Amino acid sequence: MPQNKQFLLDNRPQGEAVASNFKLVTTETPALQEGEVLVRHHFLSLDPYMRGRMNDAKNYAAPQPLGQVMQGGTAGEVVESRSPKYQVGDKVIGMGGWQQYSVVNAEQRGVLNKVDTTRVPLSYYLGAVGMPGVTAWYGLTKIIEPKAGETLVVSAATGAVGSAFGALAKARGCRAVGIAGGPEKCKYAVDELGFDACLDYKQHKDAGSLSAALKEACPDGVDGYFENVGGMVMDAVMLRMNAFGRIAVCGMIAGYNGKPVPMSYPQLLLTNRIKLQGFIVSEHMEVWPEALKELSDLVASGKLRPRETIAQGIESAPEAFLGLLKGRNFGKQVVKLI
Amino acid sequence: MPQNKQFLLDNRPQGEAVASNFKLVTTETPALQEGEVLVRHHFLSLDPYMRGRMNDAKNYAAPQPLGQVMQGGTAGEVVESRSPKYQVGDKVIGMGGWQQYSVVNAEQRGVLNKVDTTRVPLSYYLGAVGMPGVTAWYGLTKIIEPKAGETLVVSAATGAVGSAFGALAKARGCRAVGIAGGPEKCKYAVDELGFDACLDYKQHKDAGSLSAALKEACPDGVDGYFENVGGMVMDAVMLRMNAFGRIAVCGMIAGYNGKPVPMSYPQLLLTNRIKLQGFIVSEHMEVWPEALKELSDLVASGKLRPRETIAQGIESAPEAFLGLLKGRNFGKQVVKLI
Repeated sequence: MPQNKQFLLDNRPQGEAVASNFKLVTTETPALQEGEVLVRHHFLSLDPYMRGRMNDAKNYAAPQPLGQVMQGGTAGEVVESRSPKYQVGDKVIGMGGWQQYSVVNAEQRGVLNKVDTTRVPLSYYLGAVGMPGVTAWYGLTKIIEPKAGETLVVSAATGAVGSAFGALAKARGCRAVGIAGGPEKCKYAVDELGFDACLDYKQHKDAGSLSAALKEACPDGVDGYFENVGGMVMDAVMLRMNAFGRIAVCGMIAGYNGKPVPMSYPQLLLTNRIKLQGFIVSEHMEVWPEALKELSDLVASGKLRPRETIAQGIESAPEAFLGLLKGRNFGKQVVKLI
Repeated sequence: MPQNKQFLLDNRPQGEAVASNFKLVTTETPALQEGEVLVRHHFLSLDPYMRGRMNDAKNYAAPQPLGQVMQGGTAGEVVESRSPKYQVGDKVIGMGGWQQYSVVNAEQRGVLNKVDTTRVPLSYYLGAVGMPGVTAWYGLTKIIEPKAGETLVVSAATGAVGSAFGALAKARGCRAVGIAGGPEKCKYAVDELGFDACLDYKQHKDAGSLSAALKEACPDGVDGYFENVGGMVMDAVMLRMNAFGRIAVCGMIAGYNGKPVPMSYPQLLLTNRIKLQGFIVSEHMEVWPEALKELSDLVASGKLRPRETIAQGIESAPEAFLGLLKGRNFGKQVVKLI
């Protein structure tokens, strides 16, 4: 049985998350029972939602238990099978967690999904053609419900969710405007991801300044906003929202690592009759097949060219995750394990 | 022709609204043209939305023009008619403004509506069976969409909108919890308006304290919230919202008279997957007949017993309005003109 390096949640963050919240251990993978498969993980997904689950607080998901393997999405390959449903060599997506191997009961529906790596690279199933992509799809089509010609804005535009949002918005005939951190990300958003414009929030010291820049990038105002970050960026976009605008709230990463970050102008929700809705995509499994179909078609046709930041080796997971919370990644953050 | 005392908006508020923003003038009512009627106003409605229109800012309605009669709802009687549609003595509701008389073109649809004062007192058509009542109805049925057994909270519970909300919520089998300012208002909400509980926000110095009191009044959490005030009260309720809660934003009076009041915990919109929607009832005229029918039935059957604060004489309008913005009214604020 192979050795399996794993990261456990050792203790909960006090304010900012730190590397010592995690603990690396090595175990033996157990012998398979009938109906089980052993998956070797090629890629581990790192996502902002994991930060919320590190707290022992009311959240949209149960807290990550202490002393257990950090939960998370994985893309890998079946290396041993005692199930007729999977063969050695099958490429699979699951929730294997921060470890090199996982043993999965193949009888449980939906815990392991075979994927086709001829059209779409394996790691993309953790990003553009996975949970982040479906997240963008849900917020766009079910909450923002755009009409062709409308102007849509997304924060963290070059991230896994934001990149997919841009391609999906363009496919619906909308003007897509991104917000990202730094000139390199903004250039990439326009040159490679198809955004009509992208603003660098780091060039602006406050919401008023960013809002003025948004006015130029969105001359007809903002009809829909996909919120990944909260804080100053959200304030700035709200100042530019049109009447009957829609805001899909997917993340507020600005407030994850400490104190809540207030919304400065809530009265705009009233004066502009805005609909704002928070959501978590795992509660809407019914849309996944339709969303994944569109996303994989966009990738296969080259209309969605997602970027990845790839950390090498299981040992790099904590630092890569902490960097993600600070926006140090550029595109989807994954850890390559082999 | 009778003399007509009118209040004009003389200048716009700098921060807090003050009496000198208004100017009293006396004019002659003009001779009627064919198709016109002269209405003598018995009651003038004072409503928080008027404060927003005093600013020269982007708002949900065009700003109140300077030098013109303050706009507002009126209940009165036709005293002269050159229209076959109205007879002298007809009781009518319209948007006559802050003045004693108005001349109305009776050919325009919807500007003047005859009302039945045998079941419902005339002034109630400015409150429970008028715009504020329909406002409560719309937010409740179209945004909060309550199920029997759910817990619903409304701020400014003894105001015109809040009282109607309480009766409508009880009629749908919900637990109705009010928030109001002062023990007298809270007692009235429970004893006369049918609320299951009412909390006095003035007893609480911050959102945490009010939120703790709400926990007792709402042991199963809050499923729907009708927002009239914003600020600390909104923060406190948001801390108690259940997953998939709905917030109808009708007013944020806390921020009307000066600086915007922030929302402290916007991340709760995400973690609790809340839907929040701002609205203005005049954009949803299609619901008025159905809403007014239910509201007048509730009044006629004694299930909705709205309270009024009645200021006497047109001259009292500015002070009564400024008092309304500070919560000095108790129930619907009207000015009796005769």
